[in-house]
Amino acid sequence: MTAEGNKILGTVLLDMSVSLDGFVAGPGDDVERLHRWVFTGAGTENMRFSDELHEVLAEVDAGAVLAGRRTFDLASGWGGDPAMKVPHVILSHDVPDEVASGKWTSFVFESGIEAAVARARKLAGGRAVYVLGGAGLAQQCLNAGLLDELQMHVVPVLLGKGIRLFDHLDARTELRLISAATGTETVRMRYQVVK
Amino acid sequence: MTAEGNKILGTVLLDMSVSLDGFVAGPGDDVERLHRWVFTGAGTENMRFSDELHEVLAEVDAGAVLAGRRTFDLASGWGGDPAMKVPHVILSHDVPDEVASGKWTSFVFESGIEAAVARARKLAGGRAVYVLGGAGLAQQCLNAGLLDELQMHVVPVLLGKGIRLFDHLDARTELRLISAATGTETVRMRYQVVK
Repeated sequence: MTAEGNKILGTVLLDMSVSLDGFVAGPGDDVERLHRWVFTGAGTENMRFSDELHEVLAEVDAGAVLAGRRTFDLASGWGGDPAMKVPHVILSHDVPDEVASGKWTSFVFESGIEAAVARARKLAGGRAVYVLGGAGLAQQCLNAGLLDELQMHVVPVLLGKGIRLFDHLDARTELRLISAATGTETVRMRYQVVK
Repeated sequence: MTAEGNKILGTVLLDMSVSLDGFVAGPGDDVERLHRWVFTGAGTENMRFSDELHEVLAEVDAGAVLAGRRTFDLASGWGGDPAMKVPHVILSHDVPDEVASGKWTSFVFESGIEAAVARARKLAGGRAVYVLGGAGLAQQCLNAGLLDELQMHVVPVLLGKGIRLFDHLDARTELRLISAATGTETVRMRYQVVK
């Protein structure tokens, strides 16, 4: 599969790692097992993004990122310098000092889901909006009919407990399988949301 | 993929259809959407098993089937004549009249999960034990460490409500991806349970 042939243009795409039993984090927000495929190299010093992640990002070709406030906080705001060099829209009522003061310039805060998606679409300029979670944001997007595509990286583990990706959904939603591929250990499934 | 090259010998394999959000049935035990890929032809008269199902069954090469009592009841005991012509072990304390009287000869009833799996393995004679659910039985098997493999047919729908396949699991379980393939609309993922 070439990246060029599969560019996802102007779409709002949820992209998340899940266990086979549907969790996006284990107890205590633990994502180490689920995000293992994202990194390569041993130790904090030599850790870098895996070829598999680079392939995914090239294929998506995001023009903006959308994330929830818990995701932002759990990542400590990526130290003000997120890996994807595009505008990040964060769904939250409360703008942190680093952003309000103009110290961190990569972030835009929006307090409603409709406004957040609209802002991200505008900032993406025809390229994809990459929705990186968490589960609460994903559910809000789904329930509001704002997602165009879902991409799951299914990690070969049953966590048993944690935070479920698909929970509190209002309605049954038909999907259309776009593609399925295997990574190092993951199965990557991409679906279109049928509206 | 040839069926011959992938025979699953002597294994205890759970094989179930699930929605992308992890349900094996919608509200009211509705499985119509999830089992659609299993059938072909229109109307009750012309309905028959799909080529995809035949391919799956040939690959598994089951020597016995294991099912829970609710599954047995919901299928009305397959009218005494299940489609897979191998012994069916049903987990239940209560033997129905048709079986007790010797009228229905395809079924063996066992009242404990360990005994049920042991009986099915023995009856399978070195071929696979095909565990066809439901969710409660699958969870008991997983929690007792009695499953060797999981095969999921992921159907492109979010049901939102219903019976979850993976629920009430006692421990985290590592899996190893054996294969992934796409069917007519499903993604079929086969995993080994790492013990």
